[in-house]
Amino acid sequence: MRMYDIIQKKRDGGVLSEAEIQWVIDGYVRGEIPDYQMAALNMAIYFRGMNLEETTALTFAVRDSGECLDFSDINGLRVDKHSTGGVGDKTSLVVTPIVASLGVKVAKMSGRGLGHTGGTIDKLEAIPGFRTDLPIDEFKKIVNKIGIAIVGQSAELAPADKLLYALRDVTATVDSLPLIVSSIMGKKLAADDDCIVLDVKTGSGSFMKTPEKSRELASWMVEIGKRAGKRMRALITDMGRPLGFAIGNTVEVVEAIETLQGKGPKDLTELCIALSAHILNLAEKGEYAECERMAKEAIENGSALQKFAEMVSAQGGDGEWILHPEKFPKATYSYTVCAKESGYIVGVDTESYGVASLILGAGRNTKEDVIDPTAGIYLKAKTGDYVNAGDPIAELYSEKQTGFAQAEERLLAATRISATAPKAEPLILDIVE
Amino acid sequence: MRMYDIIQKKRDGGVLSEAEIQWVIDGYVRGEIPDYQMAALNMAIYFRGMNLEETTALTFAVRDSGECLDFSDINGLRVDKHSTGGVGDKTSLVVTPIVASLGVKVAKMSGRGLGHTGGTIDKLEAIPGFRTDLPIDEFKKIVNKIGIAIVGQSAELAPADKLLYALRDVTATVDSLPLIVSSIMGKKLAADDDCIVLDVKTGSGSFMKTPEKSRELASWMVEIGKRAGKRMRALITDMGRPLGFAIGNTVEVVEAIETLQGKGPKDLTELCIALSAHILNLAEKGEYAECERMAKEAIENGSALQKFAEMVSAQGGDGEWILHPEKFPKATYSYTVCAKESGYIVGVDTESYGVASLILGAGRNTKEDVIDPTAGIYLKAKTGDYVNAGDPIAELYSEKQTGFAQAEERLLAATRISATAPKAEPLILDIVE
Repeated sequence: MRMYDIIQKKRDGGVLSEAEIQWVIDGYVRGEIPDYQMAALNMAIYFRGMNLEETTALTFAVRDSGECLDFSDINGLRVDKHSTGGVGDKTSLVVTPIVASLGVKVAKMSGRGLGHTGGTIDKLEAIPGFRTDLPIDEFKKIVNKIGIAIVGQSAELAPADKLLYALRDVTATVDSLPLIVSSIMGKKLAADDDCIVLDVKTGSGSFMKTPEKSRELASWMVEIGKRAGKRMRALITDMGRPLGFAIGNTVEVVEAIETLQGKGPKDLTELCIALSAHILNLAEKGEYAECERMAKEAIENGSALQKFAEMVSAQGGDGEWILHPEKFPKATYSYTVCAKESGYIVGVDTESYGVASLILGAGRNTKEDVIDPTAGIYLKAKTGDYVNAGDPIAELYSEKQTGFAQAEERLLAATRISATAPKAEPLILDIVE
Repeated sequence: MRMYDIIQKKRDGGVLSEAEIQWVIDGYVRGEIPDYQMAALNMAIYFRGMNLEETTALTFAVRDSGECLDFSDINGLRVDKHSTGGVGDKTSLVVTPIVASLGVKVAKMSGRGLGHTGGTIDKLEAIPGFRTDLPIDEFKKIVNKIGIAIVGQSAELAPADKLLYALRDVTATVDSLPLIVSSIMGKKLAADDDCIVLDVKTGSGSFMKTPEKSRELASWMVEIGKRAGKRMRALITDMGRPLGFAIGNTVEVVEAIETLQGKGPKDLTELCIALSAHILNLAEKGEYAECERMAKEAIENGSALQKFAEMVSAQGGDGEWILHPEKFPKATYSYTVCAKESGYIVGVDTESYGVASLILGAGRNTKEDVIDPTAGIYLKAKTGDYVNAGDPIAELYSEKQTGFAQAEERLLAATRISATAPKAEPLILDIVE
């Protein structure tokens, strides 16, 4: 085979064979196919797309590009939950303890944030002492013992995705359905879970700006997961506004704890209960309504919070902090953003909210950037709320004073205020299975 | 500026500004923009195209990427002729001595062949002693003295094109109108000529497989040349069959000499007279018909052949060989290809003829390959001719015996024979100015 012929075939709208796709990914990971040819192929895929068969082959090739994990020595059904990335999305911190407290096993590999979206690993590292780099044996031992552990993705897991993503990120080829599907599912399938529930975001803060595109993304991922023998389900959820009030790392951990205490924001609580119930339902813990009731109860009786504290202790942190979140440090500086006019908040550009948080130090522009855990935003008003000119709409936190003006400008520009109240939009738009 | 934004803009169908295009080419030549980003941009250009303004800017940026030549110390109007590349196309060897003998100055930079098309420099180097690497001062001195010199392109001329072409060649982005235009014209405009006549090939042996596409290519090149202050004209000519009977290097030089002796193949002679007349007409040597008459006369009275011999002597070869072409050596081995069936040759795949010649040693697969000057093909029958099964249709020449079977197979497969005679097609399809 020749890479030239494969690029040309895709360029001309042809369908690549499984063998061709496998050959490309193998050769690229081995360094035999240069970046410039891969970049040309990615751009051709951007324009020509890939059908479901090609995307399946690409996903499996990414999965098989490194070591696949073996969780067979973890007792019981293993579940995973994956979000396509949002702003203020701390659901993993809430959902995984809920379901673990109800008897399914969570052996979760999570990513870091890049750009305007946060990452679960960065949030967990805001808990002093929490170790996200456990050796695989220790990781599995903890899961077997307490039912849950969350670590960072190892470099050996789906290395093709790391290489491909880094290349797509600098060649304007991130935004391609088959490339997104194979990137997410290639990594997910390299872990050894039985049930996967996907939270596919839609709207201004997400990859896919329309529900139709998000539904397509979801249905391909669900189908490919099933082809790999997994029980799959996906929720399409609105990222047209941040989830909850907190955006950042420490602030999101604290909000996750509050949610596990039963006093979290309404939207976040609703989504966490739904995701938990779908996971439990997939794991055959009962009918959906029954699973929903169980998830609510795990919050009400404190067992989910207890499970989170157990995990933190098992992974090197201090579980007492989870039970007493007032222990978490506050940022050195804070700044209040006030509304410039009166009216209803009718909509926000969620991505800009994420960028504002990044400017304050909560995120990364490049992989080398160091995160400031206490930096971030706490919203005082959200879409649908009425504000008077001068009312606070957000509190900003940072370890440096230099970013407030720029972050404030971003936030205000991203917040649309109008005289008429907006129509209430549902948070969960669809379920794909 | 950021390369990412420029790739994204073109990917989304945007129009790049002159400043953006200039920035890309400058950065690429300086090595600041990596190949993988350039490859992604080229593929986006392949799909989205470029308008005439963008293509002009790209062409000028390629032209200005290295040193531009200064021919102001050459007395008189300087003319150039460029072919988009064909099989058996030895017109430069015939046309340039004709027009030089009639008083216009030919200071020509030519290229080498790659793949199935030949190159003028390779052909001239089949003349023992002929130097194609003259220093620029010596080159100009010869042009001033005898009116003509032909050398290879210097590495300093339009270096962006060398880099871009090498990248396009391995990323399936050669076949893009704006990229072809900017490559050809970027190089041409870096030389300091007053009049340029383009021979844009169409059909199976050329870049552009249809007359419409060739006409579009021609009209863009003519327009951009005019914008750079040149007098421009383009002929659209048929490459649906090889030009003349000879394909190779020594064999093409000998056929060019025969044409200058007035006994060349009809098609080749016709095209050479036309190209010469258009050059002379552009250079204001007279009305077109008058220029045509002058060109024919330069053949008939021997002055064009004399000029060719003068150039060969001035550039280190032996002019006597031009006047006595029987001095040229023959290949060690030859092989006759015979028709397998009787009938009219109704069409050939010219590109395959070029590839057959390459297999025999007359061309290069990679830039490092060494050419065998005596290798090649001499056709015994061409499109329109009637052959009986067993009649010779081509003589193959090589310094090695190993390629004949493969070359024969290629030739036979590329030659379509049928009971009914084909319609005679014109050689010159259109003139663009």
